Amino acid sequence: MANNVYKSIELTGSSPTSIEDAVRVAIERAGKTIRNMSCFEVVDTRGYVEDNKIAYWQATIKISFTVE
Amino acid sequence: MANNVYKSIELTGSSPTSIEDAVRVAIERAGKTIRNMSCFEVVDTRGYVEDNKIAYWQATIKISFTVE
Amino acid sequence: MANNVYKSIELTGSSPTSIEDAVRVAIERAGKTIRNMSCFEVVDTRGYVEDNKIAYWQATIKISFTVE
Amino acid sequence: MANNVYKSIELTGSSPTSIEDAVRVAIERAGKTIRNMSCFEVVDTRGYVEDNKIAYWQATIKISFTVE
Amino acid sequence: MANNVYKSIELTGSSPTSIEDAVRVAIERAGKTIRNMSCFEVVDTRGYVEDNKIAYWQATIKISFTVE
Amino acid sequence: MANNVYKSIELTGSSPTSIEDAVRVAIERAGKTIRNMSCFEVVDTRGYVEDNKIAYWQATIKISFTVE
Amino acid sequence: MANNVYKSIELTGSSPTSIEDAVRVAIERAGKTIRNMSCFEVVDTRGYVEDNKIAYWQATIKISFTVE
Amino acid sequence: MANNVYKSIELTGSSPTSIEDAVRVAIERAGKTIRNMSCFEVVDTRGYVEDNKIAYWQATIKISFTVE
Amino acid sequence: MANNVYKSIELTGSSPTSIEDAVRVAIERAGKTIRNMSCFEVVDTRGYVEDNKIAYWQATIKISFTVE
Amino acid sequence: MANNVYKSIELTGSSPTSIEDAVRVAIERAGKTIRNMSCFEVVDTRGYVEDNKIAYWQATIKISFTVE
Amino acid sequence: MANNVYKSIELTGSSPTSIEDAVRVAIERAGKTIRNMSCFEVVDTRGYVEDNKIAYWQATIKISFTVE
Amino acid sequence: MANNVYKSIELTGSSPTSIEDAVRVAIERAGKTIRNMSCFEVVDTRGYVEDNKIAYWQATIKISFTVE
Repeated sequence: MANNVYKSIELTGSSPTSIEDAVRVAIERAGKTIRNMSCFEVVDTRGYVEDNKIAYWQATIKISFTVE
Repeated sequence: MANNVYKSIELTGSSPTSIEDAVRVAIERAGKTIRNMSCFEVVDTRGYVEDNKIAYWQATIKISFTVE
Repeated sequence: MANNVYKSIELTGSSPTSIEDAVRVAIERAGKTIRNMSCFEVVDTRGYVEDNKIAYWQATIKISFTVE
Repeated sequence: MANNVYKSIELTGSSPTSIEDAVRVAIERAGKTIRNMSCFEVVDTRGYVEDNKIAYWQATIKISFTVE
Repeated sequence: MANNVYKSIELTGSSPTSIEDAVRVAIERAGKTIRNMSCFEVVDTRGYVEDNKIAYWQATIKISFTVE
Repeated sequence: MANNVYKSIELTGSSPTSIEDAVRVAIERAGKTIRNMSCFEVVDTRGYVEDNKIAYWQATIKISFTVE
Repeated sequence: MANNVYKSIELTGSSPTSIEDAVRVAIERAGKTIRNMSCFEVVDTRGYVEDNKIAYWQATIKISFTVE
Repeated sequence: MANNVYKSIELTGSSPTSIEDAVRVAIERAGKTIRNMSCFEVVDTRGYVEDNKIAYWQATIKISFTVE
Repeated sequence: MANNVYKSIELTGSSPTSIEDAVRVAIERAGKTIRNMSCFEVVDTRGYVEDNKIAYWQATIKISFTVE
Repeated sequence: MANNVYKSIELTGSSPTSIEDAVRVAIERAGKTIRNMSCFEVVDTRGYVEDNKIAYWQATIKISFTVE
Repeated sequence: MANNVYKSIELTGSSPTSIEDAVRVAIERAGKTIRNMSCFEVVDTRGYVEDNKIAYWQATIKISFTVE
Repeated sequence: MANNVYKSIELTGSSPTSIEDAVRVAIERAGKTIRNMSCFEVVDTRGYVEDNKIAYWQATIKISFTVE
């Protein structure tokens, strides 16, 4: 771990269900092109409202992964 | 969307269940007097403890809505 | 309430399930040595990823309790 | 307390005497139209100078009150 | 000025032209219902992109006005 | 002074009188168990309202003291 | 919009004319390699001075675009 | 007022009495060399402790004055 | 550039026209007494309102210049 | 790691040599009473000057350790 | 310099030796794929502890480079 | 110490060697015109890159000194 260099990128995922699911959507999408993700930080939590109800949650995360 | 003016107000909702439910309570209350809510940002997440257990969650959101 | 002095400490709990459960784990552990917890603020929400999936959530809270 | 929804608004009061008095002026004015104020946070403390002396203090507070 | 109480509210205006014009749109709308506006602070500057061009600017301002 | 290690803790004191008195209450309580306090920083100033009047002030301070 | 994942990157554009033009330069350059840009936030505004005059403006923006 | 250029400097004053008095000390000292001070913002409030009592308050202010 | 020491000062300029012009006014004034200005950062953007219209813009900048 | 609860405390160490050595002094002192330290964050870096030379560095760190 | 567009990315390097060396490790790794790096900002400084000693330093930097 | 008024100014020093040396360069330059410097805070740490190597470090400090 001490020898690694990490890169961090910012992704925003959405979900009608929960904050955790919005994060999961972003992580899942990142996994298609990024290997070696290690951790993330939730940097912003928002939501969209339609007809006075929460339509979907939106979580922005900063994901860190090892640069090989 | 480009022609709208939005106003943002700050509300705090509570729920014994989850952060998402505390937000939902605030949105529901706002819906009684505000029309055209578009989005919100979670700006503070707190909780209250009774007998060493989480009694309820408290989420403060900034809600934006179109000024007609 | 007006006569109390509160102390705040920072704890980080983890859970594979949700942000709320990670907070609950921290509160539960704090309850073993601290009495009179009154409230907490979520100051940081992170997570760890293994095999491109969220392995566990990590919530850092600032807990306030009455100094007797 | 767990069932309430709170709204927060920002007011700025002034006083030639002290920071506390500037806050009191803002609370007093708010009390003319708002019921059920519960707490406030001092978010900004400023002052104005005339003839090299402090002419008056200006305190900006975020007041929370129950939305009935 | 030392005797006034000010209230601050947050508005977001939009304009295809410039940041200044987005602010002007918000001020103009505010002027329909608020009297005695004194000053504002630009707290957020954003924009929307369509077909790789800036479609419109969005400025969020905190406007202060005297509470009569 | 150059050889000392300092620890900082966060305490919140209350007073019906003033911000300074709320800080004094916290310092006085800290003095019962901590020796060698050197300085503090006021990190949060709040208040509680009852019947449209300020019931008490609440000051949160970060106190630093020499670890012997 | 609820199903999209967004990525945000940080770019800095320059212009001798205005803040808006510095942003436009960054957006235009981004458009050569990024499709589906949706919005941006101005996170830093600077400028360079030569011979006591503003030589050029420099705007740093965080651009969000759909990850296809 | 619209034609003025203001300069802001940071000063720290001390007082055994109160936060307001620590600010007053800084303003008074500034008045010996600066003319046309218009306003200030309190940016930091600290204190020093001796024998478990508050020895003196320390307020840091940002003072603005007209550049003639 | 690697051998220089820079000093930064904070100035506020005003203009009825635009944010850029308010910055220009501050830079122009600074140029009367400061040589070797290299760059600036816009740290605050405000405005004043008269009769429900923007009377003038006010930009606060931090200017850096070489200490000779 | 997923089952641990961490506590974070704030310590300030000093050293005439370097920032890193000031941190090392704080960690070394913490090691006398805390077991299982895992990581730290440098939250403040200061220094004291005597006779126009840096007399010593002062680093404030937030140390996290497993609560057993 | 006035015509360039810069991109900024966030990298974290590690070193058992010093903060500066952790930054150097990140810069060196970046140099394998990025050309035209111009400057960086240290945005986070952390460290890991093993057996009550600093095992390695971790520096997170935001690197800017010209987009060709 | 309780009777002093302090002024704080912001300086940026550079060094090819280390962060500490960049601070030392700024302090040394300040010592040519300022007497009675007491302490400083490191508020920004940057660096410049040439040929994929760190060419020099740049540290911005806020220095406080007694106003006589």
